Amino acid sequence: MREEIRSVLSGAESIFGVRERVGQWRDAKETIALVPTMGNLHEGHLSLIRLASQHARRVICSIFVNPTQFGGGEDYTSYPRTLQEDKKKLGAQGLVDLLFCPSERDIYPLGAETSVEIKVPGLSSELCGATRPGHFSGVASVVCRFLNITTPDTLLLGEKDYQQLLVLTRMIEDLKFPVTVVSAPILRESDGLAMSSRNRYLEVRQRKLAPRLHVELEQIQKALRKGASDYHLLESEALRSLKKVGFRPEYVEVRRASDLAKPNGKARRNELVVLAAAWLGKARLIDNVRA
Amino acid sequence: MREEIRSVLSGAESIFGVRERVGQWRDAKETIALVPTMGNLHEGHLSLIRLASQHARRVICSIFVNPTQFGGGEDYTSYPRTLQEDKKKLGAQGLVDLLFCPSERDIYPLGAETSVEIKVPGLSSELCGATRPGHFSGVASVVCRFLNITTPDTLLLGEKDYQQLLVLTRMIEDLKFPVTVVSAPILRESDGLAMSSRNRYLEVRQRKLAPRLHVELEQIQKALRKGASDYHLLESEALRSLKKVGFRPEYVEVRRASDLAKPNGKARRNELVVLAAAWLGKARLIDNVRA
Repeated sequence: MREEIRSVLSGAESIFGVRERVGQWRDAKETIALVPTMGNLHEGHLSLIRLASQHARRVICSIFVNPTQFGGGEDYTSYPRTLQEDKKKLGAQGLVDLLFCPSERDIYPLGAETSVEIKVPGLSSELCGATRPGHFSGVASVVCRFLNITTPDTLLLGEKDYQQLLVLTRMIEDLKFPVTVVSAPILRESDGLAMSSRNRYLEVRQRKLAPRLHVELEQIQKALRKGASDYHLLESEALRSLKKVGFRPEYVEVRRASDLAKPNGKARRNELVVLAAAWLGKARLIDNVRA
Repeated sequence: MREEIRSVLSGAESIFGVRERVGQWRDAKETIALVPTMGNLHEGHLSLIRLASQHARRVICSIFVNPTQFGGGEDYTSYPRTLQEDKKKLGAQGLVDLLFCPSERDIYPLGAETSVEIKVPGLSSELCGATRPGHFSGVASVVCRFLNITTPDTLLLGEKDYQQLLVLTRMIEDLKFPVTVVSAPILRESDGLAMSSRNRYLEVRQRKLAPRLHVELEQIQKALRKGASDYHLLESEALRSLKKVGFRPEYVEVRRASDLAKPNGKARRNELVVLAAAWLGKARLIDNVRA
């Protein structure tokens, strides 16, 4: 295990540098995996990198807080940027060959407003897309650029952002990108809270309450496993319960796991996923469990 | 010179087949050029293929009448499909290694309506985009797919579709596709009419009149070369003149060649392009000349 990051490329010339390095790897017939992140790395990210290293000879990790996936009133400016700590964690893990940290100007030279955009209809306007219009288009638009810069064989994505995983998988399949998507399960804190960079927005009391989101999802999971099929009832009970303890829930929904469509009564349990988004103080938390 | 098409892949499994072939070429370190067409090949297309063969060891020509770039009332169904003749022409030329003719289902398995789409803001709504909303988005969306399927080093595009050339170049640069765009000059019939598959919509009398579009562009070119700078006057004279002889012109415009912006008085002559679109009978003709 190499206890370091082999190479860090950031800012101007970094795209050229990545291409040069990738070209050398290709010449040597080495496979490449990409783990795109917005930094502020936690164990969830590190688990993606570990998985990447099992799928490819070379691992690229990118850190880029992508402006086009944040809405007007959202936390783009306050999103935690912790590059020095991130580098230490990656260095200690020793699995990343190339850390790519482009600037906004590198990725959006025309400016975020007038840049070329990818639209993934349908999927993008559901659930998180309903309250975050443009979010998934921003995600698709930035990942498209990273795929073209790094041309990986494998793209690693976390299942915590389940809708994002489906949107990006659809983009990749439909636009015929020659890359395989591999997803990794949610990592949780010991009390069940899904790991997330935004957990640091939680005050002490909120942090104690936060695992309740996962508890509610597990209760729906349990009910589904026992044969419950009145999804709407399960959803409204969870919403009421979350509100009661102090969450501002956006949605709790039972959906078809393959495409997020609303399931009809005949759906089999293992075809379902239960997803939620809820605010707690300044933190917008999301989570999901397979039924 | 190989007097044949090395390989023709069409319909189901053709994408897989192209990838396999391209993989073999890549393994042999051979470079690849793509000439995307909608078929009904004429000398203009063949000149693109010739240029392609000068830029890369392997030449892929694609034939696909792309539904997403046609508007509601447009000629999608009547667009000339002449695959057997096209194959003969390509075979006689002997420069194409792979002819790729996918079906609509291969390229848009989700259906043309719900497919992932590329938006190129600004450029796409000007000129031809003003009367053909969605056209350039359809063009960008299909070329993105063809780039991902064929992963060429070089993409060949004709300058007759000048706005398309700029839209696609912007898409490629902004989305960071690792491909170089090479453009080829307009080929003309002996009377000056720009070669186009749609010229066959012209009736005999219309065909005789058609070169007048180019004549009007040349007159503006001549005036600009003599120092004229009242673009609006030049444009309206040409529009009036085209109407008088029986065209239904959509636009005649002097624009900045680099980005199609309206030039200010200080623009240098060699920075300009003069573009026109005009209907003659059932044919929508486009043409352009550099000033």
